[in-house]
Amino acid sequence: MQKSLSVYDSDGSTFVPLVVIELVSETKEEAIAWLLNRVRDKQQDGGAELLVEQLTPGAQGTEKDNPNVYVVGASWQRLLYGAEDVGFFKEFNDGSMRGFTYANKHNFKEFQGDGDGFLSMAECQYIIKHELDNLRAKDEAHVPGYPKMKLYPGKSVIRRMQSKGILVQVFPLHEKEELKRLSFSWFKKIKLSFQPLDDIRHYFGEGMALYFGFLEYFTLALIPMALIGIPYYLFDWEDYDKFTVFAGFNLVWCTVILELWKRLSASLAYGWGTLSRKKAFEEPRPGFHGVLGVNPVTGRAEPLYSNAKRQLRIYLVSVPFVLLCLYLSLYVMMIYFDMEGWALMIHDEEPTLWTGLLLFIPSIIYAVVIEIMNLIYRYAAEFLTGWENHRLESTFQNHLVLKVLVFNFFNCFASLFYIAFVMQDMVLLRQSLATLLITSQILNQIMEAFLPYWLQRRRNKKAHKRMIKTMEDKELPLSEQVKLEADMSTYLGTFDDYLELFLLFGYVSLFSCVYPLAAVLVVLNNVTEVYSDAFKMCKVFKRPFSEPAANIGVWQLAFEAMSVIAVVTNCALIGMSPQVKSYFPESETQLIMWVVGFEHFLLASKFILTFVIPDVPKHIQIKLSRLEFESLEALKKRVIPKNNMKGLQGE
Amino acid sequence: MQKSLSVYDSDGSTFVPLVVIELVSETKEEAIAWLLNRVRDKQQDGGAELLVEQLTPGAQGTEKDNPNVYVVGASWQRLLYGAEDVGFFKEFNDGSMRGFTYANKHNFKEFQGDGDGFLSMAECQYIIKHELDNLRAKDEAHVPGYPKMKLYPGKSVIRRMQSKGILVQVFPLHEKEELKRLSFSWFKKIKLSFQPLDDIRHYFGEGMALYFGFLEYFTLALIPMALIGIPYYLFDWEDYDKFTVFAGFNLVWCTVILELWKRLSASLAYGWGTLSRKKAFEEPRPGFHGVLGVNPVTGRAEPLYSNAKRQLRIYLVSVPFVLLCLYLSLYVMMIYFDMEGWALMIHDEEPTLWTGLLLFIPSIIYAVVIEIMNLIYRYAAEFLTGWENHRLESTFQNHLVLKVLVFNFFNCFASLFYIAFVMQDMVLLRQSLATLLITSQILNQIMEAFLPYWLQRRRNKKAHKRMIKTMEDKELPLSEQVKLEADMSTYLGTFDDYLELFLLFGYVSLFSCVYPLAAVLVVLNNVTEVYSDAFKMCKVFKRPFSEPAANIGVWQLAFEAMSVIAVVTNCALIGMSPQVKSYFPESETQLIMWVVGFEHFLLASKFILTFVIPDVPKHIQIKLSRLEFESLEALKKRVIPKNNMKGLQGE
Repeated sequence: MQKSLSVYDSDGSTFVPLVVIELVSETKEEAIAWLLNRVRDKQQDGGAELLVEQLTPGAQGTEKDNPNVYVVGASWQRLLYGAEDVGFFKEFNDGSMRGFTYANKHNFKEFQGDGDGFLSMAECQYIIKHELDNLRAKDEAHVPGYPKMKLYPGKSVIRRMQSKGILVQVFPLHEKEELKRLSFSWFKKIKLSFQPLDDIRHYFGEGMALYFGFLEYFTLALIPMALIGIPYYLFDWEDYDKFTVFAGFNLVWCTVILELWKRLSASLAYGWGTLSRKKAFEEPRPGFHGVLGVNPVTGRAEPLYSNAKRQLRIYLVSVPFVLLCLYLSLYVMMIYFDMEGWALMIHDEEPTLWTGLLLFIPSIIYAVVIEIMNLIYRYAAEFLTGWENHRLESTFQNHLVLKVLVFNFFNCFASLFYIAFVMQDMVLLRQSLATLLITSQILNQIMEAFLPYWLQRRRNKKAHKRMIKTMEDKELPLSEQVKLEADMSTYLGTFDDYLELFLLFGYVSLFSCVYPLAAVLVVLNNVTEVYSDAFKMCKVFKRPFSEPAANIGVWQLAFEAMSVIAVVTNCALIGMSPQVKSYFPESETQLIMWVVGFEHFLLASKFILTFVIPDVPKHIQIKLSRLEFESLEALKKRVIPKNNMKGLQGE
Repeated sequence: MQKSLSVYDSDGSTFVPLVVIELVSETKEEAIAWLLNRVRDKQQDGGAELLVEQLTPGAQGTEKDNPNVYVVGASWQRLLYGAEDVGFFKEFNDGSMRGFTYANKHNFKEFQGDGDGFLSMAECQYIIKHELDNLRAKDEAHVPGYPKMKLYPGKSVIRRMQSKGILVQVFPLHEKEELKRLSFSWFKKIKLSFQPLDDIRHYFGEGMALYFGFLEYFTLALIPMALIGIPYYLFDWEDYDKFTVFAGFNLVWCTVILELWKRLSASLAYGWGTLSRKKAFEEPRPGFHGVLGVNPVTGRAEPLYSNAKRQLRIYLVSVPFVLLCLYLSLYVMMIYFDMEGWALMIHDEEPTLWTGLLLFIPSIIYAVVIEIMNLIYRYAAEFLTGWENHRLESTFQNHLVLKVLVFNFFNCFASLFYIAFVMQDMVLLRQSLATLLITSQILNQIMEAFLPYWLQRRRNKKAHKRMIKTMEDKELPLSEQVKLEADMSTYLGTFDDYLELFLLFGYVSLFSCVYPLAAVLVVLNNVTEVYSDAFKMCKVFKRPFSEPAANIGVWQLAFEAMSVIAVVTNCALIGMSPQVKSYFPESETQLIMWVVGFEHFLLASKFILTFVIPDVPKHIQIKLSRLEFESLEALKKRVIPKNNMKGLQGE
């Protein structure tokens, strides 16, 4: 961890600034003083026991700059205790991964001296975020100075101030040196090589590293499909016998790669110590509210919210809302096809330049409406999922992902399904598929990386014209660095990146037997995607807080669901092809029976394959069992005096 | 636990006889002496530290009686340590279930005084069986007196003597008083009531109690289906609209009841303390052999066997063998249908009494051949599964069950499938279904309970004519009781009972829309099944060793697979019905598309339903998480001195 930048604490001791808190400039003094005190207070008094200092404006500070910017750090000891609190797993002396404890710290492999360098800066920042998020109101009725900003015991202070708008943002600081090294090994080298996943994890955390790992794995896994697809394109093989073979290979391949990814991700997560972290002991997410009670698992005080109420909200409000939106989306699609038919009719009647232009209007309107619907839906989904009041961040994410996923799937693929199975126009299907795939790839790359970068550069030019040059230099005063980073865009999580991969996977797998070149296009896209995503993480966005993740979560399920749907669509496409139809000249019924039989056989094979391939590699299973065995043995060995149950519950 | 029967130990102290070991009468003295010493030896010397005495022949003992019958017991303290070894979970003072430890014994709810009555007799017997099974050879090269009976370090002594034929049997003793009480509350009462599951578990163990629990649950769950099915039979509703409704209800119902059973069984297993027992720490099964090594999870010495070799044996030998047998079974079925067609033809040509009788011959031959095939296959499956050399008894059972299941499914249902989908003869299907269902029920009840009972009574009459009366009295000398029980048939496990239920479930669900009365017949059968199974457990068989089980294991999967197959068959049957066909007079294709669409919708709903209903009820999930949380906390709290790793590994 870099120690070059440091600020002086109020005691006069220095500390490394890790996280920045920005309050609005007109915040009342008493609220600031109260917040800082709470952050500095000892843990037994309900504080976070962190170090926090106001950022002193640098030499080039202007009047316009917000004075209420604070940097937060912590002593090494506090961070180590924090690592125990959040349940980090680290490599033990015997090579296994164990939950870190302060008491046993010397038995961990990388712990040397006083523990400097044991935790990565990303981990330290995660700990500080965790402690800040869990800074909860005691008996204050409201934030001092703001009688309307109600508090109740157990409410997260930071969250309340954020939702009421006093707190602008909390973000972790970049490390210039580390970032430079990471950028070099990641995307500045010309040499073709694997991504430095461990370094990415070290700098951005496990969630991000798993995303990049999955992106790389997915790209490599598509290469065989792409290689097989190329001759189909080159030699114009329209032979459906060959397409059937291709589709069959694809379906088995999709299942196998998804299963193998589970194993690979388990290996990665074990090495990073996130595989063994237990979900049930996650702290409630900051936005979670409820009546203060006692968590039945940990025995700690925290807000509780009735599960029945949550279920009611999900099934009576969220599910009907999603279904309604899907219906709307289908309705809009039908209007689009009607409009297109109508435009075609006008053009056929009177083929002039004007009616020729009219042909494009339905597509443009449809594209715009879809974008607007996606945007509105996204907000609605976030609001609804927040309102469902999930206890854990992970379940919140899962519910949000599911909602957005289903809608996006409909919006992207409904028209293709309509063309394939209602209009049964294979030429139009191939054409639409190619157009959609290529345009969406180009648009994505622009929207995702180049647009934010360009916007940021423009902003920088305006605000810090003089700094553009110094920014590239290595030594920049802390206050300038904080100001620069505070103005960068905020990275909103891997959600959109996964969604993009998911839709690409859909283009590859759903209609693979009609357009074998799709895999080639997706591989090419992914190669540039790695670079543009890496670039945007390092250069465009604020550093995101690291998120300990053991797997890609609900996305695994989403990809698996897609591969099941792909079996159905591909079998249907094969059944509809004239070549296959010609095998059953007299009886269409027999053709369908054969296709349905083949589809059931494929589905059953998929299921059996999923069942037979273990999700976690054997050697990791053994290590996990050993940990579990030892923790049970440890529990056995604890002798508890009779009638003294507090020892068990209070810890 | 009864204390009325006791024998004197060699020290002169008394102990309660729990388990009987019978050796062949001509066993060499030195082998017996060696075995008894090993059983009595202290644990640190590699012994089992149990109490064992030769059974003194009673007053009525004759010359013919085998003198080498030994009764085994243990001191209370030894049993309590054993309970810790096998990992029993017991109710703690705070109402949660915790792994029993000798050190914490006073904190367990039912532990009073010196622990008398804390363990049920079934549990004590299980502990003794566990200790006997784990009595392993040290440096002996062979059993003393038998140079050909090779031993190697780590080989189970009891297993070797059993496989070489010196050891006739090891079985637990009945408790007359307990058994009388249990029989009364279970099947002798006339009053209709639920089965005393806790008492059954107390006497026979969790595996048996779960079987009876499932049998009862399954029967109750079928009652709604039976009630809906009755009017179809009474009013001769041939209307396929109604059948479609009935089939739809059945399919959803099957999914729901199987999901709810998981929750119920989790509740039962939690209360019995088997839900938290960890599979990975199971000791290897006695028949498991390999090279002595160190278990990577527990660090204990035990035989190891390469997983790759086992996989090779499974996929290169077992799977092809099973597939070959399935092919054979289909082949035999085709011969049967050919023969039947041939017999019909002869009868049609020349309808005399003789050719009329000829009509029955194919069925008889087929039935006999199927029985023979089942028998041979069963032996082959047991041999193959043993040869696969599974480490755990549970995986051994799972592989055996899967093998036998698939074959039995084919044998029972292949002819029905053929009639339904190839011959498309619904009248014959209904007829065959009814015949198969009723005859198999009657045959089963006879084969299962009445035949063994009758055989046993006959044997008893011959051998112990004088005892028939005294057996009914309460006080019977120990030697007589042992002799009587040694001659009873051995119960071979719940396998055949589950298999019977599974096939009945198949009759109910696979073709439910053709024969709605099936559910009524199965409910009636199950009611008598409860009584006949209870009767055979209490009166016909030797007491079986209890088996700690957390769920019905692979049977859950089997029932779920059956309900998936049922969706396919029922949809196909609905599609083939003339009433449904008449909705699509011009296009058969459209009909099939609708049916296939409906089937996919049902399958997707089933999948979502399985996903949405949690497998373990919330309150039990919380208790399990708490235990896990506490054991992790306990592990954290252990301070290990630096560079002293033995403390972690050696315990």
